[in-house]
Amino acid sequence: MSHNTFGHLFRVTTFGESHGPAIGAVVDGCPPRLTFTRDDVQAALDRRRPGQSRFTTQRREPDEVEILSGVLEDEGGRLTTTGTPIGLLIRNVDQRSKDYSNIARSYRPGHADLTYDLKYGVRDHRGGGRSSARETAMRVAAGAIAQLVIPDVTIRAALVAMGEIEIDRARWDWDEVDRNPFFCPDPVAAKDMEGYLDGLRKAGSSIGAVIEVEAQGAPAGLGAPIYGKLDADIAAALMSINAVKGVEIGAGFAAARLTGEANADEMRAGPDGKPTFLSNNAGGILGGISTGQSIVARFAVKPTSSILTPRRSIDTEGAEVDVSTKGRHDPCVGIRAVPVAEAMLACVLADHVLRHRGQNG
Amino acid sequence: MSHNTFGHLFRVTTFGESHGPAIGAVVDGCPPRLTFTRDDVQAALDRRRPGQSRFTTQRREPDEVEILSGVLEDEGGRLTTTGTPIGLLIRNVDQRSKDYSNIARSYRPGHADLTYDLKYGVRDHRGGGRSSARETAMRVAAGAIAQLVIPDVTIRAALVAMGEIEIDRARWDWDEVDRNPFFCPDPVAAKDMEGYLDGLRKAGSSIGAVIEVEAQGAPAGLGAPIYGKLDADIAAALMSINAVKGVEIGAGFAAARLTGEANADEMRAGPDGKPTFLSNNAGGILGGISTGQSIVARFAVKPTSSILTPRRSIDTEGAEVDVSTKGRHDPCVGIRAVPVAEAMLACVLADHVLRHRGQNG
Amino acid sequence: MSHNTFGHLFRVTTFGESHGPAIGAVVDGCPPRLTFTRDDVQAALDRRRPGQSRFTTQRREPDEVEILSGVLEDEGGRLTTTGTPIGLLIRNVDQRSKDYSNIARSYRPGHADLTYDLKYGVRDHRGGGRSSARETAMRVAAGAIAQLVIPDVTIRAALVAMGEIEIDRARWDWDEVDRNPFFCPDPVAAKDMEGYLDGLRKAGSSIGAVIEVEAQGAPAGLGAPIYGKLDADIAAALMSINAVKGVEIGAGFAAARLTGEANADEMRAGPDGKPTFLSNNAGGILGGISTGQSIVARFAVKPTSSILTPRRSIDTEGAEVDVSTKGRHDPCVGIRAVPVAEAMLACVLADHVLRHRGQNG
Amino acid sequence: MSHNTFGHLFRVTTFGESHGPAIGAVVDGCPPRLTFTRDDVQAALDRRRPGQSRFTTQRREPDEVEILSGVLEDEGGRLTTTGTPIGLLIRNVDQRSKDYSNIARSYRPGHADLTYDLKYGVRDHRGGGRSSARETAMRVAAGAIAQLVIPDVTIRAALVAMGEIEIDRARWDWDEVDRNPFFCPDPVAAKDMEGYLDGLRKAGSSIGAVIEVEAQGAPAGLGAPIYGKLDADIAAALMSINAVKGVEIGAGFAAARLTGEANADEMRAGPDGKPTFLSNNAGGILGGISTGQSIVARFAVKPTSSILTPRRSIDTEGAEVDVSTKGRHDPCVGIRAVPVAEAMLACVLADHVLRHRGQNG
Repeated sequence: MSHNTFGHLFRVTTFGESHGPAIGAVVDGCPPRLTFTRDDVQAALDRRRPGQSRFTTQRREPDEVEILSGVLEDEGGRLTTTGTPIGLLIRNVDQRSKDYSNIARSYRPGHADLTYDLKYGVRDHRGGGRSSARETAMRVAAGAIAQLVIPDVTIRAALVAMGEIEIDRARWDWDEVDRNPFFCPDPVAAKDMEGYLDGLRKAGSSIGAVIEVEAQGAPAGLGAPIYGKLDADIAAALMSINAVKGVEIGAGFAAARLTGEANADEMRAGPDGKPTFLSNNAGGILGGISTGQSIVARFAVKPTSSILTPRRSIDTEGAEVDVSTKGRHDPCVGIRAVPVAEAMLACVLADHVLRHRGQNG
Repeated sequence: MSHNTFGHLFRVTTFGESHGPAIGAVVDGCPPRLTFTRDDVQAALDRRRPGQSRFTTQRREPDEVEILSGVLEDEGGRLTTTGTPIGLLIRNVDQRSKDYSNIARSYRPGHADLTYDLKYGVRDHRGGGRSSARETAMRVAAGAIAQLVIPDVTIRAALVAMGEIEIDRARWDWDEVDRNPFFCPDPVAAKDMEGYLDGLRKAGSSIGAVIEVEAQGAPAGLGAPIYGKLDADIAAALMSINAVKGVEIGAGFAAARLTGEANADEMRAGPDGKPTFLSNNAGGILGGISTGQSIVARFAVKPTSSILTPRRSIDTEGAEVDVSTKGRHDPCVGIRAVPVAEAMLACVLADHVLRHRGQNG
Repeated sequence: MSHNTFGHLFRVTTFGESHGPAIGAVVDGCPPRLTFTRDDVQAALDRRRPGQSRFTTQRREPDEVEILSGVLEDEGGRLTTTGTPIGLLIRNVDQRSKDYSNIARSYRPGHADLTYDLKYGVRDHRGGGRSSARETAMRVAAGAIAQLVIPDVTIRAALVAMGEIEIDRARWDWDEVDRNPFFCPDPVAAKDMEGYLDGLRKAGSSIGAVIEVEAQGAPAGLGAPIYGKLDADIAAALMSINAVKGVEIGAGFAAARLTGEANADEMRAGPDGKPTFLSNNAGGILGGISTGQSIVARFAVKPTSSILTPRRSIDTEGAEVDVSTKGRHDPCVGIRAVPVAEAMLACVLADHVLRHRGQNG
Repeated sequence: MSHNTFGHLFRVTTFGESHGPAIGAVVDGCPPRLTFTRDDVQAALDRRRPGQSRFTTQRREPDEVEILSGVLEDEGGRLTTTGTPIGLLIRNVDQRSKDYSNIARSYRPGHADLTYDLKYGVRDHRGGGRSSARETAMRVAAGAIAQLVIPDVTIRAALVAMGEIEIDRARWDWDEVDRNPFFCPDPVAAKDMEGYLDGLRKAGSSIGAVIEVEAQGAPAGLGAPIYGKLDADIAAALMSINAVKGVEIGAGFAAARLTGEANADEMRAGPDGKPTFLSNNAGGILGGISTGQSIVARFAVKPTSSILTPRRSIDTEGAEVDVSTKGRHDPCVGIRAVPVAEAMLACVLADHVLRHRGQNG
């Protein structure tokens, strides 16, 4: 069972709610003798941290991570993994649960309020409980640990569409991603997004987005043919991110329109005897197993459900109400999903590298 | 680990290759005291069986399932589950491995040939080994057992696009699905597909497809907020089907273009105190947990990689070759994915119903 | 995989080392709407806490548990589980790692020093790392949560032998268990143990022990016939406690000397139609499934390996050395295993109750 | 969950009842490119097969195993694993369910009849269903596959006590084990057992036994400090064998009587820089991790519950009855547990070798 655990050999278990005292994670299965610093993890967290531009929730969380176990520290602060579970903790600081008091009894359309009550019969109305995107901070911290397991793999994500604004792939520039508040690789589209999102933000509205994530340098042979498919695990990983409604690998849904001739990624002999692919419709995965090409996935994030315009709903007593959300929220929650997607892909690949060693090593 | 097992409490483990003596499955965790007949399972298999029209592979397999354990049979042939694992076996009959002899040393583009060798260092070249769609027969058999666990849930799938031909949703008729060889719910589109696919078939080409699968009557409260999300499990289940490259829930990728106002599924009080939703962009799942609405998912299937037109590739020695596949194959492998998708959704829901009982019952 | 996680539906994951900043646990799968207080957990921890008599290690740890997530607190401090993971944290206070400096390079016979290096190639020499009995504090905290899932089950353990001193079962008095520092149910044996252990303690020696643990009121039908046997899970649970070398259920090893006639637990019809057993050689478990009788297990704990008398060993360079341990240690580590065993049995039963609901509910 | 699956990376799932059409297993996770023959598996099965002497049940089963998947066969019948799941099947031949008709409604004391009904509410009365020792044939087959993963490890078991007859360890001779029908390593004790068991058999009685199993040459570093302890997994594996009531590692329960001085396995530097142990009270495992010494475990098997002497019981209606079992049965079921124990230890070690590669490889 895996309700709060992700992965099999590289296992991440998270706990904690948005408005409780802390959130945390246990990273289990990390091999011993890998070295890093607390700053490596903190830097990943800082990249995800909200409140860094006017386009993400104004909740202010320093998100300072404490590493509680699983490492030995030398005098210079350098940490070495011991092979035992790595406990990670972040105290919640800016909780302001009063912001949520008015919605405690209403079900916000598009939120998990209703389904929480349907499932558990009890709900932490203070900001969504476990459903809050706050939990993703721990994924990002775990992803930084996962990256230690796959040092030769470069994982990067970018926002490639926001509402109707799509990037022009001819202008793709990875360096651009960190120069705008949208993680957008196209400077022209990024400029368009700025004005567009300002308008939505001021109107109390929100918009969806598409994010692309890729892994360069992942070894061939990861995955398995049936239920351990690498792409199935990536799909589950990305779909587990808040508000994601679709996932595709390589050509994805476009492959449904292709003929076999157009879809086939032809191969030639590379200089090192390995195959060189002439295209990557497969997104680096064939039959559930990595080919050695870049692994490429995309996912769709729905618009934030917290909006100012009243929506029709019911309350916990079944009475009909109108719900309008006035608290701090992201007009495009997809933005903050970008570093989370990188972390999830890192965790999937770390897990599969260990699995591959286990069965084939 | 789950390389050949699907599910947690309702667990399906499959084994067997396309060209070995048999394929089989173990369905573990099925509750006791459920009744069915061998014909119930056989009927599901017959629906998936290839060779039933000129549009699927001409391999002829009777696919007669043997139920080896986990049931008590009364004198009328009625079976009662005992709560112990249900062993299922289908002997392979029409293997013709000679068809594959010429491709034993070449890597077919788009197939798992290369990745198998990269992963295992040994390959069953006779028809793809575990990567063959033949394994999905066992999923369909297991799905018939899963349906026993969720008797009030109606699961149906349909092919909604083939290449550029998309159905008109205004003409959607579930009865139509079993009247054409494409599981297409739109009779007009089905007619178009017939001519279109005949052309592709004669040319030795192939085409992709999109399938939609839904579950009506699934209880609310299935799933969990983080890594046990119902939609993440559905995504993994559908992505685990051969040749699938994308999965979406509800509005899916279209949600990326919606505003929060347009995406919100508003609610009114229903006659029984339960909410009535005014739309279903969520596809029946909010925050990873079912709402009680219909669960709706779609997935994209790439075109069959086995085509007549030669494609550039390499062989196991690294030499450059041209590969053309002359064997029996499906021009649109998406067609046969329709009953498989129903089975996978049944397995996911059966598993989550048991999980829900476990934690909340 | 379960290297740091115990259980399937009621899952306990622990982290933390003896000499790191903290130890912690995540209790996942606890059903919602169970109520308790922080004091309930603290009381269990206090019972296990070392340093309460001269017979356990003089390490002073207040072991104050912080509950970080998974509960809603009302104004009176009453906690209600929400169904989400319960994060538990205890800060380490009395670490004194200097005590261990002299043994950093030697392998202490009977300890995990050598095997840690053999496994991980890196060792936290400060008190045993994860091998320290300190981790069991988290088991006890988790056990207090587990007890909420099985409110009608009474779980109790007692020390029934210390070295050559065995209790007289005719004098068994559960009330006596909390009146002596050994959790011994026989006041006469307890008196003997006091003098005996004082002698060993002063000599810097140590001694083994046998503990018996039982669960009264556990429902019938828990477990499964093959690999989900309740007794197999209990055996693994008890064997996972530090220094345990043997586990037995019911008559245990004595059953090897019995005839079928003597071993059979005969049954008569009870007042409520349920069977009344005339003996309990089975220890409440037949064919891996609970009968409704008391579940009874016993386990053997080896003597503490940390002793004053020098023992021959080698160091990390392979040089031969003599090792003598001067730090704070328990002369009979079995004593502190008593509350740990209760906690482990509670966790096993909580897990199996949820499993049973899942498959049969 | 693992109700019918054993292991994590090397995973064995079994199915089938004593009186159904077949029993089978799926061995998943076996690494690719290991070679063996069908005869290797058959030989292991033949060793366990009942009916080979008057001291085991006279049920006649040829136990011919069919290997259905997961291997490639060369022209000489040599099999190579492909890394995909290995399906194993044995048809039941000698079922004679009439033998059981008279006990269909009574609960046999000591058997799982009652607990099956308590758990599942339905019972396969024909010979115990899954509780029958027949399932262990599949364990033995799986163990033969497991042995391929650990070619340098020698696993052997022997019966060391039957009732009051204990072997003299000074006479231990492994060659003797296959020369008597008891797998007894002491020829003198074996002779005693023969007369003793003949008496019990003729009286329709039965007796318990103790078996010792060891693994020579297992690598150091297998296991983990907390819940992945090698000894905890061995305990669960052995306790999962039918009728086992106790398990111990190394000195086991005797360690409870030892002082720390006597229990410590002292070390000297071996010729190769590795430690040489001067004793093996630890049974080759310290802190849950293998030391490189021989791994030694013992377990107690209760007497067969099927005896001729009537025992008091109740029936399915709650009425009081006397039950006497007249069918074919083993007077000492412990005998047949010997090869099963070897198989289980092989499976545990294969699993842990793969796990170790996974995390540390």
